[in-house]
Amino acid sequence: MAGNTIGRLFAVTSFGESHGAALGCVVDGCPPGLELSEADLQVDVDRRRPGTSQFTSQRREPDTVRILSGVFEGRTTGTPIGILVANEDQRARDYEKIKDRFRPGHADYTYQQKYGFRDYRGGGRSSARETVVRVAAGAIARKFLRERLQIVIHGYLAQMGPIVLQPVNPQAAYDNPFFCPDPSRVQELADFIWRLREAGDSIGARVTVIAKGVPPGWGEPVFERLDADLASAMMGINAVKGVEIGAGFKAVEQRGSEHRDEMTPQGFKSNHAGGVLGGISSGQDIVVSLALKPTSSITLPGQTIDIHGAPVEIATTGRHDPCVGFRATPIAEAMLALVLMDHYLRFRAQCADVLLTTPVITHR
Amino acid sequence: MAGNTIGRLFAVTSFGESHGAALGCVVDGCPPGLELSEADLQVDVDRRRPGTSQFTSQRREPDTVRILSGVFEGRTTGTPIGILVANEDQRARDYEKIKDRFRPGHADYTYQQKYGFRDYRGGGRSSARETVVRVAAGAIARKFLRERLQIVIHGYLAQMGPIVLQPVNPQAAYDNPFFCPDPSRVQELADFIWRLREAGDSIGARVTVIAKGVPPGWGEPVFERLDADLASAMMGINAVKGVEIGAGFKAVEQRGSEHRDEMTPQGFKSNHAGGVLGGISSGQDIVVSLALKPTSSITLPGQTIDIHGAPVEIATTGRHDPCVGFRATPIAEAMLALVLMDHYLRFRAQCADVLLTTPVITHR
Amino acid sequence: MAGNTIGRLFAVTSFGESHGAALGCVVDGCPPGLELSEADLQVDVDRRRPGTSQFTSQRREPDTVRILSGVFEGRTTGTPIGILVANEDQRARDYEKIKDRFRPGHADYTYQQKYGFRDYRGGGRSSARETVVRVAAGAIARKFLRERLQIVIHGYLAQMGPIVLQPVNPQAAYDNPFFCPDPSRVQELADFIWRLREAGDSIGARVTVIAKGVPPGWGEPVFERLDADLASAMMGINAVKGVEIGAGFKAVEQRGSEHRDEMTPQGFKSNHAGGVLGGISSGQDIVVSLALKPTSSITLPGQTIDIHGAPVEIATTGRHDPCVGFRATPIAEAMLALVLMDHYLRFRAQCADVLLTTPVITHR
Amino acid sequence: MAGNTIGRLFAVTSFGESHGAALGCVVDGCPPGLELSEADLQVDVDRRRPGTSQFTSQRREPDTVRILSGVFEGRTTGTPIGILVANEDQRARDYEKIKDRFRPGHADYTYQQKYGFRDYRGGGRSSARETVVRVAAGAIARKFLRERLQIVIHGYLAQMGPIVLQPVNPQAAYDNPFFCPDPSRVQELADFIWRLREAGDSIGARVTVIAKGVPPGWGEPVFERLDADLASAMMGINAVKGVEIGAGFKAVEQRGSEHRDEMTPQGFKSNHAGGVLGGISSGQDIVVSLALKPTSSITLPGQTIDIHGAPVEIATTGRHDPCVGFRATPIAEAMLALVLMDHYLRFRAQCADVLLTTPVITHR
Repeated sequence: MAGNTIGRLFAVTSFGESHGAALGCVVDGCPPGLELSEADLQVDVDRRRPGTSQFTSQRREPDTVRILSGVFEGRTTGTPIGILVANEDQRARDYEKIKDRFRPGHADYTYQQKYGFRDYRGGGRSSARETVVRVAAGAIARKFLRERLQIVIHGYLAQMGPIVLQPVNPQAAYDNPFFCPDPSRVQELADFIWRLREAGDSIGARVTVIAKGVPPGWGEPVFERLDADLASAMMGINAVKGVEIGAGFKAVEQRGSEHRDEMTPQGFKSNHAGGVLGGISSGQDIVVSLALKPTSSITLPGQTIDIHGAPVEIATTGRHDPCVGFRATPIAEAMLALVLMDHYLRFRAQCADVLLTTPVITHR
Repeated sequence: MAGNTIGRLFAVTSFGESHGAALGCVVDGCPPGLELSEADLQVDVDRRRPGTSQFTSQRREPDTVRILSGVFEGRTTGTPIGILVANEDQRARDYEKIKDRFRPGHADYTYQQKYGFRDYRGGGRSSARETVVRVAAGAIARKFLRERLQIVIHGYLAQMGPIVLQPVNPQAAYDNPFFCPDPSRVQELADFIWRLREAGDSIGARVTVIAKGVPPGWGEPVFERLDADLASAMMGINAVKGVEIGAGFKAVEQRGSEHRDEMTPQGFKSNHAGGVLGGISSGQDIVVSLALKPTSSITLPGQTIDIHGAPVEIATTGRHDPCVGFRATPIAEAMLALVLMDHYLRFRAQCADVLLTTPVITHR
Repeated sequence: MAGNTIGRLFAVTSFGESHGAALGCVVDGCPPGLELSEADLQVDVDRRRPGTSQFTSQRREPDTVRILSGVFEGRTTGTPIGILVANEDQRARDYEKIKDRFRPGHADYTYQQKYGFRDYRGGGRSSARETVVRVAAGAIARKFLRERLQIVIHGYLAQMGPIVLQPVNPQAAYDNPFFCPDPSRVQELADFIWRLREAGDSIGARVTVIAKGVPPGWGEPVFERLDADLASAMMGINAVKGVEIGAGFKAVEQRGSEHRDEMTPQGFKSNHAGGVLGGISSGQDIVVSLALKPTSSITLPGQTIDIHGAPVEIATTGRHDPCVGFRATPIAEAMLALVLMDHYLRFRAQCADVLLTTPVITHR
Repeated sequence: MAGNTIGRLFAVTSFGESHGAALGCVVDGCPPGLELSEADLQVDVDRRRPGTSQFTSQRREPDTVRILSGVFEGRTTGTPIGILVANEDQRARDYEKIKDRFRPGHADYTYQQKYGFRDYRGGGRSSARETVVRVAAGAIARKFLRERLQIVIHGYLAQMGPIVLQPVNPQAAYDNPFFCPDPSRVQELADFIWRLREAGDSIGARVTVIAKGVPPGWGEPVFERLDADLASAMMGINAVKGVEIGAGFKAVEQRGSEHRDEMTPQGFKSNHAGGVLGGISSGQDIVVSLALKPTSSITLPGQTIDIHGAPVEIATTGRHDPCVGFRATPIAEAMLALVLMDHYLRFRAQCADVLLTTPVITHR
């Protein structure tokens, strides 16, 4: 398949462009009998919605989620769940400027070279708007994981440019537009963004997502490891340039005596592994971090070429978002949920009748 | 599938355990007509072989690669290529100590919980020995990419613990056991390793792999992006905890005006993207870095539990490798080759008849 | 995936139920640059539409096809094509009678046992109404095959109950409601149907579909053979109980001297193979036949059980179709197009650079 | 993948040619903990082995099955099971005659056109010898189905040319070289074969395979239906030209009142469905029949072309098998086991927690 499906057993196939008629996806493989309504999806979708604060772009999209199939009398039937989000704010804009030239750092050039031409309106298929359906699909996985298996997923902004944030209060991340887990530093972020906007520039970010309550044994040993699938899912989010599990790149400078998570009957003594050993969940928290690049849509002019290869200058006009990274938080949560859900089904396909011989130690 | 196949069109299915009869793989989808011999594979396999220096473990394995099928009269036939590497050094060892207890930082515990029991000899399927067949398979991809498309892949050790290495002479990486690209610092690495061994400890590493000559247009836009597949492939290498494309986590602190790679008719002015924009190759060098954790097999004793959940102490006896990370270099090169080969076939499946409308700019 | 996707490279993912909001599908992997409009799809969809003659059920559905994505400025972009067909004739019906009992010969019982409950309205997901999106997706494949490769697909009713039909004039099959390729026998079919309706009974059918112009070399040798994929695609059409390639079951009584299709520079001397040898196309016409069972929805009462396992009687009330088989003709054409399109892309992925060493003989 | 893998969750990847070093396969996804030895596989492999009677070809192959991985201390570990069967009887033969010309009815021509050249020794990859590894893999599935789920699979020759056989004593099929289920007619088959051999000709066959004890609920509704996967698996056996489920092509002439299998609390009153309704198992016996063409390797000379396109004559010299069809019996049994095993794992992946609301009726 041409890369628009994720998951083997809980499979999500996405379609749609930024300025087409609609975005949508098909969620195939959901276990039957899960109570599900459009409202269940809307909650998560609303959290990712642009235009909800002064710090994000102002496209006016209600992002109303419709379920077209796969749910009957309030429960999933086991057949594919069709999801649709109409594009309503498609008013004619002036795309003449980007129609014939490539924005540096965007997918304009690569799409043109791959497909021979491209839907240039708002980035077409490469727009982050596509992630709205991932969040909707992720909401289904998340609900199943939470209600059936008591797995809880949350995420937060861990860094924006030079500002490193500690998860002082992870729950607070849902109360501010930056998904900042330290309420005392929200103003600092706002000021930083404001200065960037005045400078016509942008900044990168680091986002961390965590799943608590994943039992040991999920994942495959060699290629479709739990960590490998997480890496793929996260790297597939727009603007992501790096993924870490647990200690991540800190492990480069760690010693074995520090990194290895010693085990006791009361649980692991640390979690540098980020919850995955040998590609399989350990029962510890699953911890994934991602690096998001600064958006290239800035008002500072830059050099580029047009579709004929001639040099031209380009600058984003109008308002822009100096940091798109933090908005990836709900998307990363959704991707984490999708990967876990898929591996849960895979786990029980092969290992449903395994008799546990060793006690599960308390995760940490 | 239970996670032992990588690739959609150039698909490698791996099997075998550290101390079983043999390791092997099936390479399905190779284009017909490629000249291929066992010697072509042996070159790469020999580079990854343990026991070739005093700095790596001393298991005596000739690692002789056999091709069982798919090659006729010196050329690939287009049918699956069966590859076998016999395990010859399987002499009885004393596994009593790890049979009933879990080594922290290893997959012992997760395998036990997933499958109910495990092949404890040398780590079984979770052993890095499995990667020998990935390297053999990767050698086929690499040969095709090099001979048909002039794509060249190389890798090197970028960091070991606190020692950061510059690719002063990438070619030199093949002349020392550490894959160090700076010949002037090989002795420093050797000394560092020696002190770690005396301390009974180990250290992490960073490895970088690069592909030069990849044309623009390879990769998919949303889920099976080129960067996402690379992230998955690299995270699937034993001990990897982080993956970066291009600037990677440096992007968190970069400004948009710095990160965006401006374009000119003469080429890109920088390569923070690492050769991938919107999931699709840009024609720039593909640059991937990975973080490898320090091995947990150290002689410093540590706490763990046995298979009944009771607390016990564990220490690796005998000789150990203080840094396994640098040995991942040829493996990462192989994985890079496998992912690129797969995407080349995917590219021409969908886009073989695309007419280029824009000149390809010189990559950088 | 839970079985709602067909194709590896030209992949169609279907969703929707008979009486849900809509039916739809996502076509992923279509080569970019194909001229495509909704009208291109509507033609084929209209041919399969029920309610277009007095011989088929009278549900009033306009079956208007909408393209939601993947087409820009009249051409496919290479990104997924979202297709939607709204269900408009969903007025409340009296489903009380089948809600709690299983219609023999239908999927009611098997859905109930698999999923624990079922959408009983009009058969839910098991309704043949789902095939509308297959026909829409097939129309894209068909257009590509015809315009780019001069491959032409057609089908006809080959038998209805005891009435065996010869393809006297295959083109005529599109001019009568039975897809009968012999205009002189249309009245006979109409009379036969009429008598069955009076008797409250139904009858099976045989449909044949043919692709002309497929070049040699498409298909895989072992499992995903061209004939195997065709068998799967056809057996996946509602009510199909048998599939034949070429001579099919006639081969059981044939001698080798009769069956083998001798070859000459002018072409094959016969086509008992049905265009496939060793799983790979031979350049001959691809010929596939399918057996369709008589519908079980008849007015003659029959024995069944209810959802509690108690015996009950069941009879279809109101008007019914005595033969649903012939309506499979456009569906089988679509499935043939989808399989061929997928194998074309697979062929060029692996073998795009094969140099032909042997002349292609004229097919027959 | 290039078509050498079957199954989604219980996945078998096959490799090897008729006259290469070895045939082999990788069985990925087997649940852990199944007791398994090479002897378990050898039983089934021996039943399919050529050279075991005067009625089959005389290649001398011991067909000794080796398990290379995935089994530890007598039980499956859940990791891939590598299987190898060495080719021992590869003595140099005179292939000059077929090296440069195409045998009609064989895959010689299609391989040449697809791949540009071919391994002509014994048919290379297109040889039925490849099925030895399918039978070995199938033996694993069969053992699991039998031991864990009490599902029993058997097959028999249902027709050879004009001789139609009734399953008078299905168990007797294992006591004669023809897999004839009616011991009273074995001599008739032997005489028929003998006369064909004298005439230098060959004949087709029909084989039926049955699975008893499959519970309701296995299979997917739309594309990867149980019957669709069975059709694909059977059509993928060498020489198969048709597949039927249950009534198969007889359904073309059946009336609905006859075909529909009425249901009672005591079970279904008939089994025209062949155990599949709407793509999902019904609890009835799964009944699949296949049509096998007569081998084209006959001593009667025939017309063909050489690799340059010039007309030549061809005739098989030496001894030949006048009917290869009956030898497909153990292969079809293996394919049935593989498909069922895969769907069992798929079933429990999605539906493991479905609560049955309706009693399962006794199958028939």
